[in-house]
Amino acid sequence: MRYVLLVSYDGTHFCGFQRQKKGERTVQGTLEAAASEIFRAPTRVAGSGRTDAGVHAAGQVCHLDGETAIPAEKLRECFNALLPPDLKVLASAAAPQGFDCTSSARRKTYLYRAYFAPAPLPLLSRYAARLAAKPDLIRMREAACLVTGEHDFLAFSARGSSAKTSVRTVYAADVRELTANGHTMYEIEVTGSGFLYNMVRILAGEIFAVGCGKTTENIQKAFASGERSLLAKTMPACGLTLSRVDYGTELFAPEE
Amino acid sequence: MRYVLLVSYDGTHFCGFQRQKKGERTVQGTLEAAASEIFRAPTRVAGSGRTDAGVHAAGQVCHLDGETAIPAEKLRECFNALLPPDLKVLASAAAPQGFDCTSSARRKTYLYRAYFAPAPLPLLSRYAARLAAKPDLIRMREAACLVTGEHDFLAFSARGSSAKTSVRTVYAADVRELTANGHTMYEIEVTGSGFLYNMVRILAGEIFAVGCGKTTENIQKAFASGERSLLAKTMPACGLTLSRVDYGTELFAPEE
Repeated sequence: MRYVLLVSYDGTHFCGFQRQKKGERTVQGTLEAAASEIFRAPTRVAGSGRTDAGVHAAGQVCHLDGETAIPAEKLRECFNALLPPDLKVLASAAAPQGFDCTSSARRKTYLYRAYFAPAPLPLLSRYAARLAAKPDLIRMREAACLVTGEHDFLAFSARGSSAKTSVRTVYAADVRELTANGHTMYEIEVTGSGFLYNMVRILAGEIFAVGCGKTTENIQKAFASGERSLLAKTMPACGLTLSRVDYGTELFAPEE
Repeated sequence: MRYVLLVSYDGTHFCGFQRQKKGERTVQGTLEAAASEIFRAPTRVAGSGRTDAGVHAAGQVCHLDGETAIPAEKLRECFNALLPPDLKVLASAAAPQGFDCTSSARRKTYLYRAYFAPAPLPLLSRYAARLAAKPDLIRMREAACLVTGEHDFLAFSARGSSAKTSVRTVYAADVRELTANGHTMYEIEVTGSGFLYNMVRILAGEIFAVGCGKTTENIQKAFASGERSLLAKTMPACGLTLSRVDYGTELFAPEE
């Protein structure tokens, strides 16, 4: 029997999603320890994708295989009784026929947050990066437009990526400005067919750089050449949140 | 020479504002350690008021007395080079003639945040409390109206308060509903002449209780009788943030 979990975590104190050698605290390792207690057998937990150390998730999707008399939707409470405060299961259900949380994923949405302020802000810095200059919203939206669509995102990925192809489709890249604790926060929300290693953090860095005065020409040049060095620095992990993963079907019953 | 500081902190890992016996990490103790380095002499730092363990501040105001050749507005960078990530100085200036951050304060504004969700949310729980039921916004606003104005708030304070009088004026109590990470967040913003010990957390608790179905009658009865037990439980510290302190004058130069 396969179960699907909607999972949220504050990535600050995790060494990323993926299980590591003993002693490293990871999301997968922590979920597997809880699952192995609940199912009373060693249990593997798969995720829709790996998030890096320090990256947060509001709606990561995971699956696991096991046998239990506990109703699927009650597994949430069983997990949450065992999980730490910075990692919780928001919903649980029986997986649809043939479901695989990694290969069935159709779209993922990430949110990148950053603020500009003359001093670091303790109440924003856990979930947002600090910008060195105040970006222009219109310019940021121009850059966001340029990365939308199907492109070879090779230049927008860290070396060592194992993906077969670096062609991906960005369905939407929205740039928003909002007020948080009296300060201006910038949010970049990117929805795509999939993302290469560090792709959202490099995309966000380039969009902020254009917002702060860099020409947009390097984006087109980077698509053509695959040259990482044309683009801005990778933004810090703390500003990134995996918002949701879409499978083309509702996995969880709506809450009343 | 007196200096004034605008201070923000994430209260999670502080045992409150007020200096304690050795070994307890406090906001005041941490600021005084930095100030004593900068001024090269033991330096006391006063705050507009004490915040409890776990309570956050977006705009606490502090003052200190000392002599230095460093320009007042540059003290911010000196402090921030010495302070930890969860406590920063947002602005520094020379204090106006006769200024005292405690006794010159005219109004304080606090924000209380809470969310309702079927499971605890790791990305909200650092700065918001979790509600056991979904409150009604209109009913919450009715309760907020009733606490606005000049009242004897004795019933809305924890025992052991040393204040001479428990009469305070609440200038405004606004209730807002907003969306955070796809979940509904409730914010109660209260501005008053001053607040008794635990007053905002008890006020927030009663407003949420009315939102969840409790009659508003107990609020009037509590004003008349001073009886704490008529009111809801004190809400957790993590949901409370000191937003700003008003002195009837601009203390800090606007940022360009």
